[in-house]
Formats: sequence, C-alpha cells, structure tokens
Amino acid sequence: MSSITLAGLALQSQHASFGGEQRFYQHASAEIGLPMRFALYLPPQALAGARVPLLTFLAGLTCTEETFAMKAGAQRLAAELGLALLMPDTSPRGAGVPGEADAWDFGLAAGFYLDATQAPWAPHWRMESYLLNELLPGVCATFPVDAQRLGLSGHSMGGHGALTLALRHPGRFASLSALAPICAPTQCPWGHKALGGYLGDDRSTWAAHDATALMAAQTAAPYPAGVLIDQGLADKFLVEQLKPELLEAACAQVGQPLTLRRHAGYDHGYYFIASVIDDHLRHHAAQLRA
Amino acid sequence: MSSITLAGLALQSQHASFGGEQRFYQHASAEIGLPMRFALYLPPQALAGARVPLLTFLAGLTCTEETFAMKAGAQRLAAELGLALLMPDTSPRGAGVPGEADAWDFGLAAGFYLDATQAPWAPHWRMESYLLNELLPGVCATFPVDAQRLGLSGHSMGGHGALTLALRHPGRFASLSALAPICAPTQCPWGHKALGGYLGDDRSTWAAHDATALMAAQTAAPYPAGVLIDQGLADKFLVEQLKPELLEAACAQVGQPLTLRRHAGYDHGYYFIASVIDDHLRHHAAQLRA
Repeated sequence: MSSITLAGLALQSQHASFGGEQRFYQHASAEIGLPMRFALYLPPQALAGARVPLLTFLAGLTCTEETFAMKAGAQRLAAELGLALLMPDTSPRGAGVPGEADAWDFGLAAGFYLDATQAPWAPHWRMESYLLNELLPGVCATFPVDAQRLGLSGHSMGGHGALTLALRHPGRFASLSALAPICAPTQCPWGHKALGGYLGDDRSTWAAHDATALMAAQTAAPYPAGVLIDQGLADKFLVEQLKPELLEAACAQVGQPLTLRRHAGYDHGYYFIASVIDDHLRHHAAQLRA
Repeated sequence: MSSITLAGLALQSQHASFGGEQRFYQHASAEIGLPMRFALYLPPQALAGARVPLLTFLAGLTCTEETFAMKAGAQRLAAELGLALLMPDTSPRGAGVPGEADAWDFGLAAGFYLDATQAPWAPHWRMESYLLNELLPGVCATFPVDAQRLGLSGHSMGGHGALTLALRHPGRFASLSALAPICAPTQCPWGHKALGGYLGDDRSTWAAHDATALMAAQTAAPYPAGVLIDQGLADKFLVEQLKPELLEAACAQVGQPLTLRRHAGYDHGYYFIASVIDDHLRHHAAQLRA
C-alpha cells in the first residue's frame, strides 16, 4: 500500500440519511495526481462507534460519485444492515488530456478501473492503483470501517471493475456482486475501445482486465461463497456489450458458484438497479457478517 | 371538470421498477396551453388489472416530473402497497414569458400550484386548474387508478401545493401529507415573491393560497383521519420560509389532527425525503385503503 492517508481530505457536503450520514469528500490523490471526489455512506452503527463492513460500489459510464448515492436507494437497507457504502468517481477529472471529453464511453467518466499504460492517459488514468492502494486503505484508516470486511460491487463498466479487481486482488475482498456488468471486454466494442486506448494494441495485455478471461484462468473457485449478478433482459446493451453468458460459462468451468438472475422487462438504468440493490446489500452483508 | 382526456398523450419512456412500471408522458395541456410532462408509477397490482389508489406528489422549486421518481426511492414500497404515484412537472415549460428563467424561485419550475391572475403569467401559469381539472381526471380516466381514492403530498413548494389544494378542494382528496412544506406563504419571502408576482399586490387575494390561513378558516377538521408532516431541523429554509409552527397552531385551533414530526439533523433535500417517504406512503395507503 503506497498510502493509507487521504491527503487534503475535505468534506464537501453531508446529509442525514436513514439515521446515518451521506457524505461527499474531495482529496488530493497521489495515484491520480489530481483532486478526486468520493461519496461515503456511514450507517447509524458507524456513527455510534462500531467498525462496520464496507461495500464499495463502482458506477458505470457517464456517472460520478453522486449517481449511486442519489439514485439507487441503497441507504435504507444499508442503515438497517449496518453496511458502509463507498462510491468513488469513475475517472480522473481536470487532467485536460486532449480528447478526454470527446466520447461518453472513453476518457472522462470512463476510467474502466484499470491503470492506463498508453500516452496520453498513463499519467492520470490510474483508477486501479487509486482504488486499491490509496482510496480503500485511506478510507479504512480514516473512517470506522473494517478493512477485513470489504465487499465489491458495481454496475456496467463498474460491474467490469468489480469483477476484474476482485479477481486481480485475491483476498482483498470478501464478497462480490455485479449489476449488468461488462463481462468480457476483450469481446465487445466498449472493451475494445477502452482496452485499446488505455492498454494499447497488443491484445495480450487485455485478458488481465477481462472478467471472463480472469475467471477461466482460475484453478479453484475464488469466491466459494458465491457471486451474485443481476441482468435485465430489456437492457439494450446486453447482447453486444455485456455478454454474461461468457462469464457464466467460465464460472461453470472453474466451479465458481454464480447466481446469475435474468430479469424480464428490466433495462440498463437505475430503476433496474434500485429494484434489485437490496438483494445485493443482503448478499454482501451475509458474506461480510454485517 | 373541463376535460377528462389527455390530448396528445405520448409515452416518452418507461422503465420496469419493482415489478411495476415507471413511465414518463407528455401531453398537450388545454389548461396550460402548452405541452406538459408528468411521471406515473404503476405498481404491479395495476399492471395485473386492479384499479389502485393514486398518490400525487408535488415537487419543489427547481424540480421536474423526474426528480421525485429518480431520487425519493418511493417505488419500492408503492409496489408493495399497491399505490400508483403521479408526479407532475412544477410549472409550464416553453411559454417564453420574458423573465421566466431569471430566478430559481419564480417562473420556470416555480408554478406554486395556483392559477396566476397577473400578466404576463396568467395565460399559462394555471397549475391549479391544470392539476385539478385536467391532469388528475385525465389520469383517472386513462389509467387503472381509482378517482375515489386520491391522496396528495408534496415537498417544499409542493408541500404548499398539497396543503392548499387539499384545503381548497374539499372531498377531492382522501388523504394528505407534506414534507418540509411552505406552510404560510403570506408570511415568508418565497411566498411574497410568488403570490405577489402571480396574484398581484392586493394581499386580500393571497390568503386563499396560504395553508395556514386556509386551515384557520375551517369550521371543522377537514381531514379528520389526520395529516402527516415531516420537517428536518437542519433545514436551512425552516425558520425563514417554512414556518410549520404556524400551521401547527392553526390545526390545533380548528381541531385538525396533525402529526408534525421534527427530525434532528435532517436537511431540505432528497436524502431527507427518502428517509421518511415510506411513512408517507403508509399514511396514504392506510387512509386510501390500499
């Protein structure tokens, strides 16, 4: 861990929420080299002095640290279960990289939760190191959350982030789920664009950031207590971009227990997320002994 | 009722939500003289063919028909209780009245749920007639909701709207609640600006749109089963703009049962609304026999 303090940590706003507090922070990120923002929900148990488990939720393309906090309705059950929620931003902001705002699926708000190796992205687009080596240890050191009871989840690009980071960092997370995740970025247009742009044209480097490829390479189930994935069947990105059937096959191949629920009629947005988020909170709380 | 059909009704989008559907519509409003938008949540019971009670939620300054749908987290319990939710927009849009966008608390997104009598607002700013004579009867005639089981609630400016419309139209609504409502617009700056602008300088016309004055003029409790109001004590608008103590006194004077809950630490925003909205849904469902 390169740092366990969050330099320049500054509370931007806080809101009482279900007996806990929904807070928004900014800090000076050493890994990113820029100010970064995150949202943190502390349940009433944490405010009362308990050290609680922490579920990190990685958001999707176009989102910020505010999106999940505002739209998912997760605080109600998190308060009941005694789960803290960490909601990072989705990319560096303010780098001024030429072209960073040209597309909604690459650059700003599209960090894909990896460390870029290619110019001009490499200096700042370091979301994996930022999350694992700076934000998570910093949050655990600063707030009453238990570094031994970390869960990881996310939506779409953030579902890709959750699955890949959990598989790339064994033992770091004790529970894992995803909503409508990009399951095989080496095999879809969003992934080709992001992996090509951030990692370069040598596709041999891509598999290390592909949940399906990472899962298929396991020699034993990395999450023996089971992974939960929810997917809407009216999701317009399902067939071309998300491909949960590929991850499902990889899980079956290595014996990874997977509950993949397919929901007729549900789309890719936050009305879907809100409809199933309680089950994810319960999944994590059970595995984290919240 | 001037109209029970919604002319030019067009579905803009719909999203599966907790087994029901969150829909967004536009229609050509005769009362407003412009296209208007509204959001409608139909719970699973309505989709299965039942005629369900309808709770209308009036939003506050700066909001649209999307705000409550997106941020309040009300669909979860509405689905469980079998309540439909109607979320109107907060003012006419597209009138092009000079100055309509100059202030955040007057004009656009600030219709105050009354019919303006003053130029240049009078031709379009007719939110009371729109809601009572067009939108509500139209929604009841178009969707599987029960016109005899209508509840009314709202937040801030929308709390003012809920309280005043429910008192101005006896028998129309069977249940009433409000969150952080503007309780006495004749006695606060927002109210002075809105009532003066829309109704003119003759203050004798203002009391008919002031919840506290309307309540004080009752000869018997208009909502004998009780009214629910929630108010955060960290709400920065509480003292100058909201003044629930005035409405509380008027209710006591006329024997109107009022549950006014004051919540330490809670502010004026949607994290507060989300924290208490379930209690409002239960309040309405109980009185509407949902």
